Amino acid sequence: MKVGIIGAGSIGLLFAAYLSRVFEVTIYTRTHEQTEEINNYGIVLKKQGEQTKSIIKALPMNAWKGHEDLTIIAVKQYQLQTIMEKIKELPTVPGNLLFLQNGMGHLKQLDCIPLTNIFVGSVEHGALKENRYTVTHNGEAVTKVAVFKGDPTLLFELISSAPLEFPLVFKEDYYNTLLSKLVVNAVINPLTAILKVENGELIKNQYYFKVLKNLYAEISFILNLDNTEEQFRQIITICKNTSANRSSMLKDIEADRMTEVDAILGFILDEADKKNRKAPQVENLYYLIKGKEMIKGEYA
Amino acid sequence: MKVGIIGAGSIGLLFAAYLSRVFEVTIYTRTHEQTEEINNYGIVLKKQGEQTKSIIKALPMNAWKGHEDLTIIAVKQYQLQTIMEKIKELPTVPGNLLFLQNGMGHLKQLDCIPLTNIFVGSVEHGALKENRYTVTHNGEAVTKVAVFKGDPTLLFELISSAPLEFPLVFKEDYYNTLLSKLVVNAVINPLTAILKVENGELIKNQYYFKVLKNLYAEISFILNLDNTEEQFRQIITICKNTSANRSSMLKDIEADRMTEVDAILGFILDEADKKNRKAPQVENLYYLIKGKEMIKGEYA
Repeated sequence: MKVGIIGAGSIGLLFAAYLSRVFEVTIYTRTHEQTEEINNYGIVLKKQGEQTKSIIKALPMNAWKGHEDLTIIAVKQYQLQTIMEKIKELPTVPGNLLFLQNGMGHLKQLDCIPLTNIFVGSVEHGALKENRYTVTHNGEAVTKVAVFKGDPTLLFELISSAPLEFPLVFKEDYYNTLLSKLVVNAVINPLTAILKVENGELIKNQYYFKVLKNLYAEISFILNLDNTEEQFRQIITICKNTSANRSSMLKDIEADRMTEVDAILGFILDEADKKNRKAPQVENLYYLIKGKEMIKGEYA
Repeated sequence: MKVGIIGAGSIGLLFAAYLSRVFEVTIYTRTHEQTEEINNYGIVLKKQGEQTKSIIKALPMNAWKGHEDLTIIAVKQYQLQTIMEKIKELPTVPGNLLFLQNGMGHLKQLDCIPLTNIFVGSVEHGALKENRYTVTHNGEAVTKVAVFKGDPTLLFELISSAPLEFPLVFKEDYYNTLLSKLVVNAVINPLTAILKVENGELIKNQYYFKVLKNLYAEISFILNLDNTEEQFRQIITICKNTSANRSSMLKDIEADRMTEVDAILGFILDEADKKNRKAPQVENLYYLIKGKEMIKGEYA
């Protein structure tokens, strides 16, 4: 199977490194510097002190023609617009697409891609991009994948061929799969980004924990979550297991990058609006993050 | 008139420096180091590049016997408990007390002091304690004073004798006088402390401004404020006029000191509870500040 990967951030590099062990992988990058460096040095994967190198073909993003059997789209949600326009302009429709974005704001865009089998995934790995061709796999987990529409054949092939050390887990219900991840991101990421704390602090500090609880209560009501207690216990477990980690949103704010707040809290605000429910906590958190995005060099 | 001042923080030093121009002032300090330094060096007042020195008698706090005609209590609200116990143990009841605390949580304690004329004040000056005997007056304003209970004669004497450059303004309604200040503190202080920004940023950053507005709406509903629009305009004006200032709560958090969050947001939460109104934003802000108080050295 030929696999294309669009986007060479931490997730793109991680998938390229592992999947190249069993598939022929081409990675498409946004900058020429990164194309060159990956072609020169391969992709270096660091895990628990060991490092392995994979020789992988890199091309600039606009060289992507959708000819691979499967293309994995591993850009951030706010970069997706460009890819969607690219897909519409392709002379031939790509056969199979797997979208790995956080949040759920992008689902409405996926409906507009005709004739293609579309899969979505929720990546639970921890990965850190160290430089243009090096990624550290610092949280071993799984990738949950589900069918958004179309024929699942190729997804099953991907799952069954994926390396054992990088498992893909099939989920029946794409909506709830993405929703669980979104809820986790919604309560952990903005708070840690505002407070500038590691994930574990949200449960160690008794007052921050109260805020976490209040926020979860508001979100679970807005989203009509089932099993709210179980989900909340899962959030606590994640804070424990990733206790010393800085959330992606905190890292984005620290690095003066755009965050995924629109994809995450923006989706919840849309849902609140649709259901005519109040979202005072989510709304304020959303604006606090948007406000932080505007202040450059704050952490310099 | 003999005036005692309990507490030698920025406000205590500021009042001592100005009032000593017309009254005989004794300042009571918490530490022996400060007693000694004020007795050795006087109190140095800096204003617009000029500095003046006042020779003022300093004594340790437990030397206070309430013998002065008026005692001004200029400690933080969370330090008031000790003073209240002291007052109860005095052999003679002090004749006149003026309380200058922020917030309104202390009002219920004032009812328990018998036979004394009690006044309350709201200090609108900006003042910064530079060291144990030096204060900078960086925001010229007024002190609003009102009668909490008893005979106002001495308060009027204080107002009419106070130096022109340090005006005291009489207000009929102590409750609304303190409430206006509390509302200003409630919307500006916690947000600036969480975001680590100067006051002006809350109106310059369009997203922070939305949070300011949402928060004000919640608070004004809980407190049944009249003239909510006028009050909100006043808050915007204060943010403008103190644009480059760091709020007292931000400074407290930066210096690992306790904040006045209980006196300010705690009071609003009590009111919400009494009136059975929801306070999701105030509650979360309260816990975020309490959580920050627990993390020492965060800004070191």
